[in-house]
Amino acid sequence: MVRFLVLYDTPEDPAAFDKHYNEVHIPLAKQLPGLRRYTVSKNVAPVRGKQYYLVAELDWESTEAMQAAFGSEIGKQSAADVLKFAPPGTSHSVIFEVAEV
Amino acid sequence: MVRFLVLYDTPEDPAAFDKHYNEVHIPLAKQLPGLRRYTVSKNVAPVRGKQYYLVAELDWESTEAMQAAFGSEIGKQSAADVLKFAPPGTSHSVIFEVAEV
Repeated sequence: MVRFLVLYDTPEDPAAFDKHYNEVHIPLAKQLPGLRRYTVSKNVAPVRGKQYYLVAELDWESTEAMQAAFGSEIGKQSAADVLKFAPPGTSHSVIFEVAEV
Repeated sequence: MVRFLVLYDTPEDPAAFDKHYNEVHIPLAKQLPGLRRYTVSKNVAPVRGKQYYLVAELDWESTEAMQAAFGSEIGKQSAADVLKFAPPGTSHSVIFEVAEV
């Protein structure tokens, strides 16, 4: 499984962020080709380090499947949409393979 | 499901970090009471923002179960062990409820 992990800083207008994320971004990103699972955080609390507002995790079966999704029309629309609710520098994302230990 | 997400910065000595993490920390943390799932990243790559060396995710059934694990003897040993391979400021962690969308 390959995971796309996104950490969002606390927005200036949380209500506007929530509205756009829930009403526009989720319905868009859920259409990403090959997406296996999409989860979002509720009630994020810091343990060590900074507070984040939202943690989103999107899973694909393989790196190839994820890359195909990112390169698709929906992938391009989803990436562009992020900038409508999270200005540059306020979202932080990494991709990695998930290994159970 | 309640998740403990830990992001580790790139260590000064990756080989020493890997050895301690794999040989000491994982065997210790796997004993945390009520732990449902423990995954670590392979091949982390940044998309937006900084590079991280390792992403670990530990899941419990509920906040109460996680808090009980953190408060247990193994929980205290695990927290103390982190400082042996990740100096203060080099690990970043949050807890949150996982909601599928």
